[in-house]
Amino acid sequence: MQTKILTIDLDERSYDIYIGSGLLYRISELIPQALEGRRFYIVTDDHVHDYALRVQETLQQDGAARVEMLVLPHGERTKSFYNLEEVASFFLENGLTRDSVVLAVGGGVIGDLTGFAASVAMRGVSYVQVPTTLLSQVDSSVGGKTGINTREGKNLVGSFYQPSAVIADIETLQTLPKRELLAGYAEIVKYGLIQDAPFFEWLEQNGARVCALDEEALSHVIDTSCRAKAAIVEADEKESGRRALLNLGHTFGHALEAAAHYDGTLLHGEAVSIGMVMAFDLSHRLGLCDFEDLERVEAHLQSVGLPTRASQVEGLETKVDDLLAVMRRDKKVLGGRMVFVVVGGIGGAYLKDDVPEDMVRAVLTDSLGGEKKEATKRWSSAFSSLS
Amino acid sequence: MQTKILTIDLDERSYDIYIGSGLLYRISELIPQALEGRRFYIVTDDHVHDYALRVQETLQQDGAARVEMLVLPHGERTKSFYNLEEVASFFLENGLTRDSVVLAVGGGVIGDLTGFAASVAMRGVSYVQVPTTLLSQVDSSVGGKTGINTREGKNLVGSFYQPSAVIADIETLQTLPKRELLAGYAEIVKYGLIQDAPFFEWLEQNGARVCALDEEALSHVIDTSCRAKAAIVEADEKESGRRALLNLGHTFGHALEAAAHYDGTLLHGEAVSIGMVMAFDLSHRLGLCDFEDLERVEAHLQSVGLPTRASQVEGLETKVDDLLAVMRRDKKVLGGRMVFVVVGGIGGAYLKDDVPEDMVRAVLTDSLGGEKKEATKRWSSAFSSLS
Repeated sequence: MQTKILTIDLDERSYDIYIGSGLLYRISELIPQALEGRRFYIVTDDHVHDYALRVQETLQQDGAARVEMLVLPHGERTKSFYNLEEVASFFLENGLTRDSVVLAVGGGVIGDLTGFAASVAMRGVSYVQVPTTLLSQVDSSVGGKTGINTREGKNLVGSFYQPSAVIADIETLQTLPKRELLAGYAEIVKYGLIQDAPFFEWLEQNGARVCALDEEALSHVIDTSCRAKAAIVEADEKESGRRALLNLGHTFGHALEAAAHYDGTLLHGEAVSIGMVMAFDLSHRLGLCDFEDLERVEAHLQSVGLPTRASQVEGLETKVDDLLAVMRRDKKVLGGRMVFVVVGGIGGAYLKDDVPEDMVRAVLTDSLGGEKKEATKRWSSAFSSLS
Repeated sequence: MQTKILTIDLDERSYDIYIGSGLLYRISELIPQALEGRRFYIVTDDHVHDYALRVQETLQQDGAARVEMLVLPHGERTKSFYNLEEVASFFLENGLTRDSVVLAVGGGVIGDLTGFAASVAMRGVSYVQVPTTLLSQVDSSVGGKTGINTREGKNLVGSFYQPSAVIADIETLQTLPKRELLAGYAEIVKYGLIQDAPFFEWLEQNGARVCALDEEALSHVIDTSCRAKAAIVEADEKESGRRALLNLGHTFGHALEAAAHYDGTLLHGEAVSIGMVMAFDLSHRLGLCDFEDLERVEAHLQSVGLPTRASQVEGLETKVDDLLAVMRRDKKVLGGRMVFVVVGGIGGAYLKDDVPEDMVRAVLTDSLGGEKKEATKRWSSAFSSLS
C-alpha cells in the first residue's frame, strides 16, 4: 500500500507524519536526521518491545553509531516523575549529546513521557514518535503536547514540544488488544462529529473494515483524523478556543474516567464514546440537535462495540453529584462557568457556557441509569464478538 | 536612587529587568500582571526567607487573591529532580491555575529550579525572578536558561524559558555573605574582559566601592553586565558561537569545581576568577596577549579578595591529568577538540580550538603549584579583611 505523508506546517518546527504499513523496516530513511555517527535512544514498553527491537536492529544495520533502548512497564502509571527521571538518566548515562535523537516507540503514555523527557534533556534534543496504538496514531501525532501525571491530576506537568517526525506503522496495530483499538476508534469518530459529517457517513459505511484492521481503511481514517486535528490546532493560533472543540465528549468523559480511578476499568476512548453520546443528548435536550442525530451516533458507536452509556461500565460506583464535582474542577471551567462542547447536529460542534445545570444532571442521570440492562447487553455482545 | 529599567527584547517574550534599591516594597507595581483575583506562588530558600516574606506581605496588602510560599534548603543540592517534583506539587496542591504567577526569590539555585518548574507546570505559567545574590542579578537575569542537576552533571535537565520580569533589589545584597558577593563580582569582571576594556578600567577604579556595597556602583555594574549579556545572547541568534564567549574562564573553572566536588570549598565565581587568570595565562603563552594584561587582571581580582590560583583553594586534591580529563568531557568540546575562550588582550575575547595540549598542561601546572605560598597569603589576607 501507498505510504501517506502529511506535513504539519509550523515554520521551523514543521515535521512530517508518515502513515503506512511496514514502515519500521525502512525507518532509517524516514527519520530526517542522518544516521552516520549519530546516537539514538529508544524508549518503549513491555507490550511493544518487539517493535522497538525491530527499530533498533534496523537503525544499527543502517549505520547508526549507537542505539540504546529502555523498556518501561506499560500503563498510565508510567507517566510519572519517577519515570521522567529514569528516562533522563537513561539518556545521560548512555552518552546523550545535543545532536542525538530520541525515539518513542509505544502508545500515548510512552509518547507523552518520552517527548517530555526529550524536551528537557540538555534543554531539548530531537525526538521521533513511533506511535503503536490507534489512539496515539490519530491523537498524539499532532499538537505537540507532552506530559506526565501527578498526584493532583493527569498531564498537569509537561511541555509543548514538536517531534521531528511521526512514523505511524499500521502493522503495529495487528497486535493491539481489540479493546484498545476500539478506544482509538472513538477518537476517530469524534472528528466526524466535530466538523465532518461526510467522514462520519463514511465511518458508518466502513467502520467495521477499520475495526477489522483493513489497511486501506485504517490508513484513510488515520490520515483524515490527523488532518482534522492539524487544521483545528492551526486555526487555534488565530481563533482562540477552536482547539477546545477537540474536547467533544471529554468533559463528561473525564469525569467518568476519574470516577473509575484510571485503573483500566474504563479506557479513555471508551469514556469519550460515552461522553460524546452525552454531549449529543445534552444538545438534543437544549433543542440544538435532532433526536435522529443522537440515535445515529449511539448506534454507530454501539455497532463497532463501544460503550455508549455510563451504566455499561462494570464496577463503576459513582453518583451524579460526584461526577458534577469533577466536572467543575476540570481545566475547561472558565470564570466559574462550565464550558461544554455542544452540537447543532453531526459535524457541527461549538462551545456553549450557559448550559443549565439541571440539563447536565438529567444527562448524567440517564447515562448512569437509563436503559441499563438493554444497553449492557448490546455492548457486551458486540464487544465479545470482536475480542 | 533611580531605578534602572532594562528591556530584554525577545518579541512576544520581551521583559523588563528592574535594578534598584528597596524594590521589594513596591514589587506590586513592578510585576506586569494585575494582582486582583490572581494567585501567586513564591519559592525561596532558608537564607533569604525574610525577603520572601516581605514580598508575600506586599502582594497580600496590595490585593493578590492568594500568596503561597515554599521554603527550600539553600545550596546546590536543591537543584534536583526531587525538589522539582516538590515545587510542582506545591503549585498544584495549592490551586495553581494557568493565569497564576510564580515568583523565585533567591539566588541562582532557586531561580533555575523555580523557572524550570514554572515552565512545565500546566505546560508553562508566568514567573517573575527576584534574584537576591549578585551572581544571579548579573547572570541568571538574562538568557532564559533554567534547569536542575542530575547524577551525571550540572544543568543537564532544564528548559529555555523567559521570565515575565526580573526584579533585582540591591538592598538584598546587604545580607549576602561577602564570599558570595565576591563570587558574583568575578562574573562582572568577566564582561569587561570579554569585550569592554573601558568597563574593566572602571572596575579597576571602582571595584572596591562595588564590594563595599555602594548602591550607585552596584546598580551600574549590574546594569552594564545585564546589557552585555543581552547583547551577546541576542547576537548569538544570528552569529552562532558568540554566546560561547560567556564561558571565558569557565572551561578551566568547571574542571576546578568538579575537582572540588561542589561542596562549598570553591564557589562558582571563585572558580571563574581562577579560570579567567588561566585563560589570560594561556593566551599569553600562545603569544596572543601581553603579559601586562595578565598581570592587570590578576592584580585586580586579588585586590578585591578573589582567588586567582588553584593552589589557593584549601583542601583541593587534584592533579593536572584529572583536570584535563574533566575538560575533555565538558559540553564545550566540539568534534573531539577542546574549544577555549582566549583573549587578544583585555576586552578582546574569541574562540580557539587548536590549542596545543602541552600549553594547557603548563597553565594548569602553574596554577596548581606556582607561587603557592605567596598567592595563598595574598588571598587570605584580602579575604579576611572583607568578611
